[in-house]
Amino acid sequence: MKQKLRNHIEKIVPLTDEEFDTVLSHFILHTFKRGEFLFEKEEKVKYVYYVVSGLLKLIFTDRAGSEHIVSFAMEDWWESDFYAFLMKTRATMSLKCIETTTVFSLSYEDYWNLCNSMPKMEKFILHKSHMGFIGAQQRILSLLTTSAKERYEQLIAQNPSLLQRVSKTQLASYLGVSRETLSRLSC
Amino acid sequence: MKQKLRNHIEKIVPLTDEEFDTVLSHFILHTFKRGEFLFEKEEKVKYVYYVVSGLLKLIFTDRAGSEHIVSFAMEDWWESDFYAFLMKTRATMSLKCIETTTVFSLSYEDYWNLCNSMPKMEKFILHKSHMGFIGAQQRILSLLTTSAKERYEQLIAQNPSLLQRVSKTQLASYLGVSRETLSRLSC
Repeated sequence: MKQKLRNHIEKIVPLTDEEFDTVLSHFILHTFKRGEFLFEKEEKVKYVYYVVSGLLKLIFTDRAGSEHIVSFAMEDWWESDFYAFLMKTRATMSLKCIETTTVFSLSYEDYWNLCNSMPKMEKFILHKSHMGFIGAQQRILSLLTTSAKERYEQLIAQNPSLLQRVSKTQLASYLGVSRETLSRLSC
Repeated sequence: MKQKLRNHIEKIVPLTDEEFDTVLSHFILHTFKRGEFLFEKEEKVKYVYYVVSGLLKLIFTDRAGSEHIVSFAMEDWWESDFYAFLMKTRATMSLKCIETTTVFSLSYEDYWNLCNSMPKMEKFILHKSHMGFIGAQQRILSLLTTSAKERYEQLIAQNPSLLQRVSKTQLASYLGVSRETLSRLSC
């Protein structure tokens, strides 16, 4: 578990054993069962999560009660309702386990403590923030300019294991199409 | 011009006169005429831009030649093809002036120089990156879950001046609807 987090951080910034111990002391290891929520809409979002193993979905439920999947988060991903986490407001989305999932949780206070006390971790967090931002800009582009069929093909090319791990209903919800439309795309 | 940039940065981190002079020495002031491109698709993206005055559109042209507006950037906004800028690849989008626009340009090298040599500017850049990320996550949510009518109303509520500054065709392109659909929404 610890080694996964260390390898993940060290892709960006090398750490001494002592530095990693300090970093690690800011995280809490949690395992959530399939179907459990890490947080639900309207709750305070106290943590950002690094996924060690398992699979999460970030969902938005609209006024009509329909569930939209904003993102899937699997091994080596960071996930949260970042708006609510960073702005200290209540969640507009929910984060739920598709599989039993182990995460390292980092609280708002520890996020900023790490950032302010360790220049290397500030660099790491800036890198992750950049990657999150450009990933989101790519997703906007994809939603504005590609067909559901193209989005389906992109998603599967980037994450081939997802087909085995999520239901067709969930895939359709991520792509913004009906279950019936997805069946036609995936033939 | 300089004072606008200083006020903008000082909303996040206070600077001494000397620090601001150092910051300013990394930027280049440019004015582009209406219709001019700051960069075009396939070009290298050397700069990120802070808009002092005017209005830009970030556009993606699909294979069929249709133009999609990914974002509008007005006074006090930062804009670029951030993927291409940060990853040093070629642009997938173009940045074009809707009005005559004055920007402070910050090159890739100066962006990282500022970040690495001035902790206050690293903090500022991290803040901007966070805001860009959560803004993009909100836009994804909006594209996935709201109707064109709701997106139109959100956009106008957040940026009332846009209605006077951009054409109906451009508004429709940003909202991802046809010009005819927009006419029905804006009645």
